[in-house]
Amino acid sequence: MRVVELAGGVGGARLAFGLQVEVGSELTVVVNTGDDTDRHGLHVSPDLDSVMYTLAGLDDPVNGWGVRDETWTVSEQLGRLGEETWFRLGDRDLATHIVRTARLRSGERLSEVTTTIARALGVRALIQPMTDDPVRTMIRTDDGWLEFQEYFVHRHQEPAVREIRFDGIERAEAPARVRAEIGFADAIVIAPSNPLVSVAPILEVRDMRTLLATARRAGTPIVAVSPIVGGRAIKGPADRMLASLGHEASALGVARLLAATASGFVLDGVDAALAPAIQSLGMRALVTDTLMTDDAARTRLAHEVLEFARAIRD
Amino acid sequence: MRVVELAGGVGGARLAFGLQVEVGSELTVVVNTGDDTDRHGLHVSPDLDSVMYTLAGLDDPVNGWGVRDETWTVSEQLGRLGEETWFRLGDRDLATHIVRTARLRSGERLSEVTTTIARALGVRALIQPMTDDPVRTMIRTDDGWLEFQEYFVHRHQEPAVREIRFDGIERAEAPARVRAEIGFADAIVIAPSNPLVSVAPILEVRDMRTLLATARRAGTPIVAVSPIVGGRAIKGPADRMLASLGHEASALGVARLLAATASGFVLDGVDAALAPAIQSLGMRALVTDTLMTDDAARTRLAHEVLEFARAIRD
Repeated sequence: MRVVELAGGVGGARLAFGLQVEVGSELTVVVNTGDDTDRHGLHVSPDLDSVMYTLAGLDDPVNGWGVRDETWTVSEQLGRLGEETWFRLGDRDLATHIVRTARLRSGERLSEVTTTIARALGVRALIQPMTDDPVRTMIRTDDGWLEFQEYFVHRHQEPAVREIRFDGIERAEAPARVRAEIGFADAIVIAPSNPLVSVAPILEVRDMRTLLATARRAGTPIVAVSPIVGGRAIKGPADRMLASLGHEASALGVARLLAATASGFVLDGVDAALAPAIQSLGMRALVTDTLMTDDAARTRLAHEVLEFARAIRD
Repeated sequence: MRVVELAGGVGGARLAFGLQVEVGSELTVVVNTGDDTDRHGLHVSPDLDSVMYTLAGLDDPVNGWGVRDETWTVSEQLGRLGEETWFRLGDRDLATHIVRTARLRSGERLSEVTTTIARALGVRALIQPMTDDPVRTMIRTDDGWLEFQEYFVHRHQEPAVREIRFDGIERAEAPARVRAEIGFADAIVIAPSNPLVSVAPILEVRDMRTLLATARRAGTPIVAVSPIVGGRAIKGPADRMLASLGHEASALGVARLLAATASGFVLDGVDAALAPAIQSLGMRALVTDTLMTDDAARTRLAHEVLEFARAIRD
């Protein structure tokens, strides 16, 4: 069963872990790169790396980002040399950024570099950036426009979000392999990632909505998993972002944003009462336990999501 | 007493340590950058860093390069990602290369970046590259032309050296601060560094010989310290290089190479018999213990070199 997952960071990475257990190398994870940033001259791709480290079994179970058992020697020395270090980069994580930056500078595409690094780390699935072109998510707050990581990490997601834009998105094309995999997929899964800053940029890449619509018309199920459970984001500021931008901070609010794209929607048991409203948006609904508290829970949810996708297709 | 030292790596760094004890912030160290190299997309300046770490009191007493009590986490991970790691870069050392590379890419000059990093590490002396322009020392062996670090580190200086060239040297200019400090200097010291690959590129920077000749005519003593003791290089392949390129592998051989530039020459006690021949080249000679086995020895030698310079000037 060929599966394509559209993913942001931690939630996308955890479901990807389960999907990789289910379908192995038949999984392609298409990852948001709007959060990419330049740190100390190095190209950092936080969501790509969360997915990569998780699929390699190297993810940090405490932070939810970076590499487990990480050390911070370089970062501490960078601080001594006068660099801003609020965006913390671990030593082993830095090796990824150093290799990525060197290869990008030598002319390789981000999609190629990602494949090389993921393979070296033993990842079976194919991990691809949503685009090889530069896209930068910008967040307007009452303090003006902020680069995403400035808002997310430096300001701890505290300022209320008034507007979001994806600089460069109108010129961003999906890598050829992503376009092909979406065409070949037996199921497409939209991860439980922030719909406004993780999933939205992927959907706004040029032709992406058309590719997904074409796949859907050809019978490919597109199943979204809610990142909002009981009105709260499992991780991150999605609930507050939804509210401050005039959406409902609930699984139903997310379902409304994705109703034009997805044919199925997975929501948590605590939100079961929202299922009829979600179905009335034209989507099939699956109510189950969506909390991925350990590897077994990730795999179980992935299994149920794929079963649900099969049921929609049939 | 304003002192300018022309220096390569370890020998230059050790004498610089002593000179800094003697004259503090009145020391300017002009450092060879022909050994600079690109590793993993990062700009590495081995000689600049040997001098900088030594003057900051951070030098590794075992290796003679890098930072003491270093860790190697990033390098090991770079190896896992398929990178060549024969040029070993420690974690704290990498912070230097990351900052240098980022600042160079943002348009700063190497001389500016070096000043910033050295200041952050608490160095009192001024450390300057011989030039802000790219120069690459190339070594011809029986296996063809090799980049310097390929010869020096990867091949362990084993191939016989047939020819040396400094790519880019004809367009390389000394930084403004270097030109000024040579003009202001009360003494100029040529470090006990390899005369063929550490001192020679500094002397071949555009106008450098003219600057030194002008200073010398104005009465500024220029004192060279022999890196060859008892016919052997204290460190590195200088003795074998001298021999394979048709020079005498001795303090006298070094003195012949520097006779047109220096007015004084310091040689080790074991080579005292060479003093008359060196004097007959037109240089004053000082015979003393030149081995810098510990901090006290570095400071004593620096003190004697400066006393010798004063004697030449008077």
